[in-house]
Amino acid sequence: MESASNYKEEEPETTMWSQKAWALLSTVRSQSPLIQCITNFVSMDLMANTLLSAGASPAMLHTLEELPEFTPQVHALCVNVGTLSAGWLPAMKLAAELAHKSGKPWVLDPVAAGASSFRLKACLELVELKPTVIRGNGSEIISLAKASVEPTKGVDSSHESTDAVESAKSLAQASGAIVAVSGAVDIVTDGKRVVGAHNGVAMMTKITATGCSVTALIAAFVSVDQSHVLEATASALSVFGIAGEMGMKMANGPASLRMHLIDSLYGIDEVCVLSHAKITSLS
Amino acid sequence: MESASNYKEEEPETTMWSQKAWALLSTVRSQSPLIQCITNFVSMDLMANTLLSAGASPAMLHTLEELPEFTPQVHALCVNVGTLSAGWLPAMKLAAELAHKSGKPWVLDPVAAGASSFRLKACLELVELKPTVIRGNGSEIISLAKASVEPTKGVDSSHESTDAVESAKSLAQASGAIVAVSGAVDIVTDGKRVVGAHNGVAMMTKITATGCSVTALIAAFVSVDQSHVLEATASALSVFGIAGEMGMKMANGPASLRMHLIDSLYGIDEVCVLSHAKITSLS
Amino acid sequence: MESASNYKEEEPETTMWSQKAWALLSTVRSQSPLIQCITNFVSMDLMANTLLSAGASPAMLHTLEELPEFTPQVHALCVNVGTLSAGWLPAMKLAAELAHKSGKPWVLDPVAAGASSFRLKACLELVELKPTVIRGNGSEIISLAKASVEPTKGVDSSHESTDAVESAKSLAQASGAIVAVSGAVDIVTDGKRVVGAHNGVAMMTKITATGCSVTALIAAFVSVDQSHVLEATASALSVFGIAGEMGMKMANGPASLRMHLIDSLYGIDEVCVLSHAKITSLS
Repeated sequence: MESASNYKEEEPETTMWSQKAWALLSTVRSQSPLIQCITNFVSMDLMANTLLSAGASPAMLHTLEELPEFTPQVHALCVNVGTLSAGWLPAMKLAAELAHKSGKPWVLDPVAAGASSFRLKACLELVELKPTVIRGNGSEIISLAKASVEPTKGVDSSHESTDAVESAKSLAQASGAIVAVSGAVDIVTDGKRVVGAHNGVAMMTKITATGCSVTALIAAFVSVDQSHVLEATASALSVFGIAGEMGMKMANGPASLRMHLIDSLYGIDEVCVLSHAKITSLS
Repeated sequence: MESASNYKEEEPETTMWSQKAWALLSTVRSQSPLIQCITNFVSMDLMANTLLSAGASPAMLHTLEELPEFTPQVHALCVNVGTLSAGWLPAMKLAAELAHKSGKPWVLDPVAAGASSFRLKACLELVELKPTVIRGNGSEIISLAKASVEPTKGVDSSHESTDAVESAKSLAQASGAIVAVSGAVDIVTDGKRVVGAHNGVAMMTKITATGCSVTALIAAFVSVDQSHVLEATASALSVFGIAGEMGMKMANGPASLRMHLIDSLYGIDEVCVLSHAKITSLS
Repeated sequence: MESASNYKEEEPETTMWSQKAWALLSTVRSQSPLIQCITNFVSMDLMANTLLSAGASPAMLHTLEELPEFTPQVHALCVNVGTLSAGWLPAMKLAAELAHKSGKPWVLDPVAAGASSFRLKACLELVELKPTVIRGNGSEIISLAKASVEPTKGVDSSHESTDAVESAKSLAQASGAIVAVSGAVDIVTDGKRVVGAHNGVAMMTKITATGCSVTALIAAFVSVDQSHVLEATASALSVFGIAGEMGMKMANGPASLRMHLIDSLYGIDEVCVLSHAKITSLS
């Protein structure tokens, strides 16, 4: 009986995860970490608004000349290859190197990694630069793990996240990164442990840049707790998903969902996170 | 008596057009065609969300290096010169050539074609590459047809669409493209037939990127019925206009109209399309 | 007793300012000035929609090749260095020179001026090209006035606007520009007079690109009254702030505020401007 579960005592593990998610969101709000994003033209607006609504401070700086001064000052870096070009790639690489050298976490979003040899090569080179977290959809993570160009659905995944668990684990082991796979269930792994974040609603896939935005949110969460990267990643995915669930109650379609999601992320409180976060160990 | 028209028998031609519009939207939703957009920085977000809401899959890839692998895989290409630069033009041309060679439809949006000699020349070179459809406002289509730089209102039209009918016809004849002119009435022509799509609301001109977005929607509609390009173009214009009419009922201004338009495009059903689509032969 | 103030006679000075603000908005609506924006990737969408909602006509053209033909035709230019790169800087400079030579006002938004030496140098070079107005937050104006790179909060200010009054005055005197500093109170100065615009709500700082957007609105207001630049600048800041106050009454968070702000800017009427505008002389 589904509804009875509301009256059951929560699993201690679930409660621990929910408390962690709330603690991290609270810390982002109080510390307002500065998150540099070198990202695509489509998603800059929603990414910046996602970070602001979560309490972080976004900075969309991508210019080679200013990275050596700027990147070491930020609290985390987010690199997203959505509208990749040869002109932007050197800045992505330099910023990743600077973040790594400065001991700052950096997160890679390998958008459409398998769409072309050029893009795959660029993504693999970025993986070499030691991202703290890699977040993609199933198709992207499979392409990266197999280092293969695949027939593509563009930026949309043609695989479920659960199809990509083994790819995610091997990518995590090979790269040293925490790997997250977005989908109906969001998967997070360090190569051994596999955790699932079960929040979110299907209509979020009908809004452009939600994937990019949750990657930026992961960067913000990881920036305030670098010693628990897997937990921070799962927490960010769950909190963003809860904001989507809250938004969905008020939405009439993808555009109103987008608005209500951001409003909800801004307004979400402890009770809501503790009662809605669903993060579980999958292995 | 205006309201009485609801009880009149519909003209058979109008009914046929409405059924065509609904059939095409249904096919876009079921086939989810992959639409590549090489477009301007202002409109990427709304274009991507328009395509997603209509059921298509957007891909904003513009990099020269990956076009030879990527473009032949897409179902249609949309090229928009809004924030044109010398750096982006070669990719626009190459993608257009690849689409043409692969038998994929491609749609040109000659934003502000008459704003400068550089821009006009670029647009005319793109017209040489055999676009399947060209969609612009009255001023843009007149500039292209006359190959002339004109005093400009920027991206906004200083001509009504109906002023541009002859220009549209001659551009269609010279280029082999279906030409669409947006305005209070949207005009579509193959150089001989002229069709009018009478949907939409005036406030849509107060939202940036609505023109760009309907061009992307045309690409999606044409991609699923390449043998009826004129019909697909008129249908996309009508469906987008109906979404605007539906959105307008809930809107308090341009920003809420933008949201409700996208929600409406996502939710629009057969009854709504059949009862609201107004497409007629004008000659 | 706060509410009693509604029944007091308004200060003559405040009434004069409110009437000026309304007169300028009305003129923007009736003349629909063409405003060229060379701006950052994050804010193009909201800036264009802000201009459209206020009745102006935006043009996001940044290409070196077309500036000599295009810029002299516009009514004002807005240059924003948010996502500055070496590739875009020459166009920013050339457009500024062309605007200055053509007697057209141009407005500079020195986003994150102190974030790097490269960025500061670029901003100082732009200041040399005689902007009509410079609008920034406290940190940006202080960086420009002191010509110093400072530890940064990215694009967010770590100073109140009121901390920057002396910097604003010295920058105005040195550059010949009207200088505006956004904050809880917006400050405007010509180097001697200091005026405060007291409209707006705190949540506007949680929406990306609101600063960029009000800079574009300043360009529109100044374009219709070049002989009263200080007044036009303060009026634009006040009108945008009032739209934020009106929007806040309907908002549940930053994303709905963004929507309602733009709707309110579109719908704002004389009674609303006259009753809500709060512009005062501070010295």
